[in-house]
Amino acid sequence: MKPNAQLLEQILDDVRPLIGQGKVADYIPALADVTNQKLGIAVCYNDGEVIRAGDADEAFSIQSISKVLSLTLAMQSYQAEEIWTRVGKEPSGQAFNSLIQLEMEQGIPRNPFINAGALVVSDMLHTRQSAPRQRMLEFVRYLAGNPHLCYDKAVADSEMLHSDRNAAIAYLMRAFGNFDNDVVPVLTNYFHYCALEMSCVDLAKAFFYLANKGTPLSDNTAILSPTQSKQLNALLATCGLYDGAGEFAYRVGMPGKSGVGGGIIAIVPGEMSIAVWSPELDPSGNSLAGTAALELLSARIGRSIF
Amino acid sequence: MKPNAQLLEQILDDVRPLIGQGKVADYIPALADVTNQKLGIAVCYNDGEVIRAGDADEAFSIQSISKVLSLTLAMQSYQAEEIWTRVGKEPSGQAFNSLIQLEMEQGIPRNPFINAGALVVSDMLHTRQSAPRQRMLEFVRYLAGNPHLCYDKAVADSEMLHSDRNAAIAYLMRAFGNFDNDVVPVLTNYFHYCALEMSCVDLAKAFFYLANKGTPLSDNTAILSPTQSKQLNALLATCGLYDGAGEFAYRVGMPGKSGVGGGIIAIVPGEMSIAVWSPELDPSGNSLAGTAALELLSARIGRSIF
Amino acid sequence: MKPNAQLLEQILDDVRPLIGQGKVADYIPALADVTNQKLGIAVCYNDGEVIRAGDADEAFSIQSISKVLSLTLAMQSYQAEEIWTRVGKEPSGQAFNSLIQLEMEQGIPRNPFINAGALVVSDMLHTRQSAPRQRMLEFVRYLAGNPHLCYDKAVADSEMLHSDRNAAIAYLMRAFGNFDNDVVPVLTNYFHYCALEMSCVDLAKAFFYLANKGTPLSDNTAILSPTQSKQLNALLATCGLYDGAGEFAYRVGMPGKSGVGGGIIAIVPGEMSIAVWSPELDPSGNSLAGTAALELLSARIGRSIF
Amino acid sequence: MKPNAQLLEQILDDVRPLIGQGKVADYIPALADVTNQKLGIAVCYNDGEVIRAGDADEAFSIQSISKVLSLTLAMQSYQAEEIWTRVGKEPSGQAFNSLIQLEMEQGIPRNPFINAGALVVSDMLHTRQSAPRQRMLEFVRYLAGNPHLCYDKAVADSEMLHSDRNAAIAYLMRAFGNFDNDVVPVLTNYFHYCALEMSCVDLAKAFFYLANKGTPLSDNTAILSPTQSKQLNALLATCGLYDGAGEFAYRVGMPGKSGVGGGIIAIVPGEMSIAVWSPELDPSGNSLAGTAALELLSARIGRSIF
Repeated sequence: MKPNAQLLEQILDDVRPLIGQGKVADYIPALADVTNQKLGIAVCYNDGEVIRAGDADEAFSIQSISKVLSLTLAMQSYQAEEIWTRVGKEPSGQAFNSLIQLEMEQGIPRNPFINAGALVVSDMLHTRQSAPRQRMLEFVRYLAGNPHLCYDKAVADSEMLHSDRNAAIAYLMRAFGNFDNDVVPVLTNYFHYCALEMSCVDLAKAFFYLANKGTPLSDNTAILSPTQSKQLNALLATCGLYDGAGEFAYRVGMPGKSGVGGGIIAIVPGEMSIAVWSPELDPSGNSLAGTAALELLSARIGRSIF
Repeated sequence: MKPNAQLLEQILDDVRPLIGQGKVADYIPALADVTNQKLGIAVCYNDGEVIRAGDADEAFSIQSISKVLSLTLAMQSYQAEEIWTRVGKEPSGQAFNSLIQLEMEQGIPRNPFINAGALVVSDMLHTRQSAPRQRMLEFVRYLAGNPHLCYDKAVADSEMLHSDRNAAIAYLMRAFGNFDNDVVPVLTNYFHYCALEMSCVDLAKAFFYLANKGTPLSDNTAILSPTQSKQLNALLATCGLYDGAGEFAYRVGMPGKSGVGGGIIAIVPGEMSIAVWSPELDPSGNSLAGTAALELLSARIGRSIF
Repeated sequence: MKPNAQLLEQILDDVRPLIGQGKVADYIPALADVTNQKLGIAVCYNDGEVIRAGDADEAFSIQSISKVLSLTLAMQSYQAEEIWTRVGKEPSGQAFNSLIQLEMEQGIPRNPFINAGALVVSDMLHTRQSAPRQRMLEFVRYLAGNPHLCYDKAVADSEMLHSDRNAAIAYLMRAFGNFDNDVVPVLTNYFHYCALEMSCVDLAKAFFYLANKGTPLSDNTAILSPTQSKQLNALLATCGLYDGAGEFAYRVGMPGKSGVGGGIIAIVPGEMSIAVWSPELDPSGNSLAGTAALELLSARIGRSIF
Repeated sequence: MKPNAQLLEQILDDVRPLIGQGKVADYIPALADVTNQKLGIAVCYNDGEVIRAGDADEAFSIQSISKVLSLTLAMQSYQAEEIWTRVGKEPSGQAFNSLIQLEMEQGIPRNPFINAGALVVSDMLHTRQSAPRQRMLEFVRYLAGNPHLCYDKAVADSEMLHSDRNAAIAYLMRAFGNFDNDVVPVLTNYFHYCALEMSCVDLAKAFFYLANKGTPLSDNTAILSPTQSKQLNALLATCGLYDGAGEFAYRVGMPGKSGVGGGIIAIVPGEMSIAVWSPELDPSGNSLAGTAALELLSARIGRSIF
């Protein structure tokens, strides 16, 4: 069943009472300042139509959702073996920024969607790209069809001021020989990717390629092969929601990726890409009302991968 | 595309050269004695047809595949909250029989498909069933439509002689208050479930309910609701292959469950249930040629959940 | 300086105000019932004199102090290599009953004074002794010169009813091949050793051999060589107080061993053996006022090994 | 018994056959280049006499032995509580540069003699001293009575080029709020301290204050109080030899500190300070022949703290 705007409005009304039960990310001031009342959803259907409700046009900090974009860029310029010898494909089974697992597994991050893995991917992009931040910006503007997308420099700078743990992760990987460039410029790029400002509509459009076998909404040129697109969805299904991937699969049943800014993107392969936004997070670091909205949408349109 | 026997034969021919690259489980003599040359596959399609190739009618020890059956029985007699407060829904991120994670997480196993989780489920069945081993036997005979299915007592007894680690796991959960019955009888049941002897054809038929929204092949009475069936598939997709769940999703893209006897079952929701068998295992403990066969099948019939 | 009864009385007066700041062990009812007001100290000097103050003649459950006695018995009947290949000599650096370290280190306990190590020692005694519990009783009666010493059966039985964690430890070591006998009888012996009832005077006398190069107070026959006695003191200094060994060395500066019954024994090699008792424990599981009493004694008599 | 030069020569002859059984530290080229044949010992007795044998006058890289010197400086300028709230007093129970324990214990290093702890101490010195490297140099020249002592800049620079793991440790502690200064200058100081070049004779003289209740050989002004000196010896006894502290206490029975340059200092409180040097290390990172020499010395002069 194809969702319509009325259904999306209804879903937002149903989950709005959950606001107040979660916690807005507050580890940097720029994120803590966002009002918890924001709530938006957008769906990009395979006929090209975009349906929306609530604050679907308001931009927010996409944070870790950017990890899917940087991995996609890496998959375009590296062979599969080059990537998957430096980062794993398995769920992490622990908090998303743990050094314990990284040390026990000799500096090889569990998957590209935990911080350590995304830092390795950023290190790879830094090696092959002359202007990584500009390249990412062009890529995401192209995917979303929105030339006005940009970084929130205040967020990026604020992240850099609170970067000690990520620096520790990067140096530990360097100690294991799994990080090639200087730490500071790679961290700078990484925090810029996280500081991309996008709306639910931007996100639903940008990630349509994962619902469309690798071909984006904006034109007919594939950015990933159908197999790569399927593989990326598989990684999202098992590793996309930190330590809540199993619960998300159980409740929502779609590949997805969340960010501490409160956004989540989700994919129904062959049919649609979805983006939700609600800033309050559950204890696993995923948007609380956003997850509930996706659960309702999955149930009401009868769509899940299972 | 619906697979046919010729396609299945072709797939077995393609993966047969992998035999010799894995390792037959040898922690108990009864498993170590199985010849590594066995190779079989069976598919139960949603029109009721069963297609097979190779050693698809030869019974083997299903081992951990039984964990899906015991969880299904628990879902029939316990409320969801009763189950999911005692066992989690998240991937384990570590070896399948680790006590480290169990201690760090206060005796709550990560999911019902690692040993600790299956022991909790067995403990729950022991509390509510008067004759758990007989009940399981009746259940699986009914699901597979095969009244001759039985336990291999030699395997069950041999497992009991090598049960120290599982006993340690059970006692540790008792110490945390998450195990209600005496350890020995529950272990005895658990090892019997693992010692069920089934062929690929039996398994494909028995697990058809997961491809059919909870309703088994044998009659039209649902054993799980459509929602429960979807949830169980979600759990299999994220947690069903020990520490290789991500790799399996990436390569095969179907919910599945493996056993150290070399069997794997996999589900294409709405379409078919599949069972493969090849005794040699990869380093994660999953059938090496079996996984490869499922990967080929997924690619050739163009079916995956992603 | 040789301590006298007046000094001991003064020390008890000085530490008595600490009562109320710790916590009596309550994991079994038999221990939880002891009044927290008990306070005693006894010193056995190298001229044979025994000095005492407070509740020094009242018997209590020695608990883990027994681990020194069982190790001494093992050192009498096993070669050093036989012991130290099965248990280490290093501080544990973690809580005293952790399975995490035991699994990471392949079933070899860090030292003989954590539960896992003492269980290995009990396993060794079980292998070589026909009546281990009787043998221990004779040994400790001889050392203390007190034929009335016995086990508190109620404590031993109560420990057995709460033995799940220790059973998990023993089964895990069996799984690693480092436990030879059946678990239940060894646990039974182990809990009896812990349930020995001794007073401070009994303990000071019994452990005099560690202050006297291996020769007990009761006669002139060495039970350990001078080298063995020195080695055992070294083990006590680095591993005798669970995760508080460093703090104890820093404050008290004597080899020692504590029990959750609130007793601590301490040794000034060549000079004296000391026993204190106060049931309330600090967060590391060592007697709070007892440690303070030893610290004062060390400072006032100017004796420490450092 | 006071050792003499002949006894020291004899001991070196006895342990020389062990050369070849260990492994010279090779993680930086400057250390790997040292010949494994070097062997020296020096004793500074409480009457002021210095006895020596072998290569006792040849300077080598003291490496982690410097951690005792930096802690001594910190004890001079900080209150005890200021130090011991930022670093623990307990043995580490794991490899000396593990981040696992540091993360589990919220950025508080186990003790001041593992890398993390010494980095915290260096951070404290950096806060209070205007020229930390110059201050250390003056301190150690004064203690050893040798105005020619200096840093090996090549070693310090080489360490800095291989500093990724230590940088990871420092950034992780910053993330937990337990590191106040910029990481790079503190690391630079730390590696200079490690790169101090001293001979066995220099070391035996420099550490005499720990055998002499806090008062150095060079004059009668105490640098630590008798209590502080006793406490420091206690810390050395329980934490001074990485993950081999228990074994060292068992075999040698003296407070001590080792460095990966192959040096070890050891203390007989009230009597003498000892330094040995042999570059090959055992698996715990402590000088193999050096430990054996101390064991022989302890046995032959009948001196041990136990």
